[in-house]
Amino acid sequence: MANTNPARGMRDFLPSDIRKRNYVINIIKEVYESYGFEPLETPAVENIETLMGKYGEEGNQLIFKILKRGEHEKTGEADLALRYDLTVPTARVIANNKNELPKFFKRYQIQPVWRADRPARGRFREFYQCDVDAIGSKSMVVEAELCGAVSEVLTRLGFTDFKIRANDRRLLTKILNAASIPLEMHIDALVSLDKLDKVGSEGVRKEFLNRGIGAESFDKIDKLYSELAKPQPIDQIIARIGEYIGRSSFDDEYTDLDFNMFFGFFDCQNESIIDGNLKNHILYFDVTLARGLSYYTGAIFEIVLTNGDFAGSIGGGGRYDGLIGMFGKEEIPACGFSLGLERIIVVMTERGMFPPELEQNSADVMVTIWNEESIAESLKLASELRKSGLRVLVYPEADKMGKQFKYAGQINVPYVCVMGENELAENKVSLKNMTTGEQEIVAREEVATKIKN
Amino acid sequence: MANTNPARGMRDFLPSDIRKRNYVINIIKEVYESYGFEPLETPAVENIETLMGKYGEEGNQLIFKILKRGEHEKTGEADLALRYDLTVPTARVIANNKNELPKFFKRYQIQPVWRADRPARGRFREFYQCDVDAIGSKSMVVEAELCGAVSEVLTRLGFTDFKIRANDRRLLTKILNAASIPLEMHIDALVSLDKLDKVGSEGVRKEFLNRGIGAESFDKIDKLYSELAKPQPIDQIIARIGEYIGRSSFDDEYTDLDFNMFFGFFDCQNESIIDGNLKNHILYFDVTLARGLSYYTGAIFEIVLTNGDFAGSIGGGGRYDGLIGMFGKEEIPACGFSLGLERIIVVMTERGMFPPELEQNSADVMVTIWNEESIAESLKLASELRKSGLRVLVYPEADKMGKQFKYAGQINVPYVCVMGENELAENKVSLKNMTTGEQEIVAREEVATKIKN
Repeated sequence: MANTNPARGMRDFLPSDIRKRNYVINIIKEVYESYGFEPLETPAVENIETLMGKYGEEGNQLIFKILKRGEHEKTGEADLALRYDLTVPTARVIANNKNELPKFFKRYQIQPVWRADRPARGRFREFYQCDVDAIGSKSMVVEAELCGAVSEVLTRLGFTDFKIRANDRRLLTKILNAASIPLEMHIDALVSLDKLDKVGSEGVRKEFLNRGIGAESFDKIDKLYSELAKPQPIDQIIARIGEYIGRSSFDDEYTDLDFNMFFGFFDCQNESIIDGNLKNHILYFDVTLARGLSYYTGAIFEIVLTNGDFAGSIGGGGRYDGLIGMFGKEEIPACGFSLGLERIIVVMTERGMFPPELEQNSADVMVTIWNEESIAESLKLASELRKSGLRVLVYPEADKMGKQFKYAGQINVPYVCVMGENELAENKVSLKNMTTGEQEIVAREEVATKIKN
Repeated sequence: MANTNPARGMRDFLPSDIRKRNYVINIIKEVYESYGFEPLETPAVENIETLMGKYGEEGNQLIFKILKRGEHEKTGEADLALRYDLTVPTARVIANNKNELPKFFKRYQIQPVWRADRPARGRFREFYQCDVDAIGSKSMVVEAELCGAVSEVLTRLGFTDFKIRANDRRLLTKILNAASIPLEMHIDALVSLDKLDKVGSEGVRKEFLNRGIGAESFDKIDKLYSELAKPQPIDQIIARIGEYIGRSSFDDEYTDLDFNMFFGFFDCQNESIIDGNLKNHILYFDVTLARGLSYYTGAIFEIVLTNGDFAGSIGGGGRYDGLIGMFGKEEIPACGFSLGLERIIVVMTERGMFPPELEQNSADVMVTIWNEESIAESLKLASELRKSGLRVLVYPEADKMGKQFKYAGQINVPYVCVMGENELAENKVSLKNMTTGEQEIVAREEVATKIKN
């Protein structure tokens, strides 16, 4: 017998899985569209040169490569590859359609990506990314709107305990400079600092040493971090960082105004969550947030859930003003968020956050078949019920009634219609409510109304 | 500069493309769900053994194969491959989830497939298939419901000139037998006969000779075909075929009753199209329909458009009671339709069948920014408008008003809001209708209502 499992790390989605996934995806789409983001889709398959070298050495290893075809298949060479993320293909599309796309292009993209990672609990080789990006402006309005949109998505899904940790790579650069870490070691330092909440202060200190960064550098940063760990007003945060980097204010490139403005913009969309304490906001400044990716150039974000035993982020993002330029002639500023669909679904399932009606069969009613001669009447009834907006299943065979009802129970359909000889003669339908077990004789033209109430 | 085109035969979908595609896909989903079909999705990547040998020698050549990874990459061998159609993966899923799925499983699946075909006008290497299949029953109720669902999809999309050609492989087998064509040449004969409308009677005759089938066989079939070419009542069709195959009725395996019942079932869902002439029905019997695929075992269908210069089918299907068995221990009957999304979109575009609002930018209104100081107020206004259900775009920068309006014109947004110092002081908004050019001062709380009307 043939192997019928999906390929390693891949998943089949049965109807009940898809109902859940579509519920989440539809809310994401609706909210992003209400913010003026537009849908974009790119092919699953890219030219191999488009992807290679964009994700670091480790990324290159994880790309699925496609064999050349025909007589070239023998060479064992690859010319195509599967999409690894949504950011690089989007950058390619923007460079390719510069004249067709508006100057400020707000797009969302919800598509699968493929990575030849070792499969593990919650880690798959095919998984969906939900990206939202605003391209073409350096204004902090963009960051504020993105945070607003992402917060609304999570609120609409029913999350009440999410927080957006925010920091800025420009600030981090100043902090690393002030700790005497040479520029070429900044990414190493950021990757280490990013693990602070996982490995603790001692762990990061060791990482610094392993990577050849002096312990005194870490100690200096650690001192600032502990000072900023306590909740405090934003002005005091600015003052402390200013003091640390050795000036009263940030500087021309990244001003106090930017910093205040960004938090202010966010607040003005979310009046209800404003109070004097940044840590009580959905969006809060967290100097310890670093994010490992090298392409960020400004604001960086991570979304975390604060209740329960779910550890880790369910999304993140930031500003990357240099990335799109690699496909075109000019630099194009951009900022975006990526939500982790699979993680969101895992947490929502564990917390019972899906509406109970998703558990139900997708049909509202099943029409039974009394005998071979009355099939046409059953099909007619089904057609009438559909015209009134119901989703109607017809049992396909003239089996014994008991068998048909047993099946209706198995597929969890809420109503069943029977048209026996008597009902047919009187133009009536016997309607059974499968939840209560009640059965009543209803005039044929009233069946749909009965079911809808 | 890097190559920014999508890979050969692949397409990027910009927002205006996706709006059209989603419009079609949503109608397909809605109709299929109203018939009780449920969504199924399978991974893009399958184990190579799952696909190889399922699509004939030509199919094997067109499968995109994925290189082994890590140290095995050097071997140049493939262990995975991209989905080539939706039927084989569904057969695998059904065999793999026999105990979880209901006995009668009605599923639809709308996903891309990949074929390394030579790209041409309307032929792509990544394209969507929209499949709908009813699995687990041999009853003709299934065929009738499938034809009903597909007809409703096309009607809802606005097609008024589609027809479903129907035939049955069991009848064809009898016709080929009666023409003395040996069983092992039946598929050859069917593939030739399938080209009748393209190459004409003389062309098929030549094909028969090339494949080693006698010309007298074709002539015998051709005589029957011309007798059946004229519109005539179904009873007469049955009588003619019965006479041809040398008996008064069909036989036990496929009875006149089946034949009548099938057309009758379809009609009872579509009362409005019944008349005495089968050729005037949406569904009509066409003895010349053969379909090239070898796996059909019963009813076969093809959907054609009868107006204009669009030649070729926009979908097809049939019964394949043997296919799913190849992954499991037992035979599982099945019948289904596949709609060609790309062809439907091409024809709908040419015929101007998409609703005009799809051409519009996805935002309902754009909020401008008067100056740096009023950004927060613009964001607040945007948030208020969103709460009333509008899709709102915020111009991200405090550019000159003229520039902001020019942009609004370019992206084709129907309304623009301005909040200057005067408006802000009076809690009003200046609202411009971009279609009429009219501009009026509106109380802030009435802006949403104005736009919605």
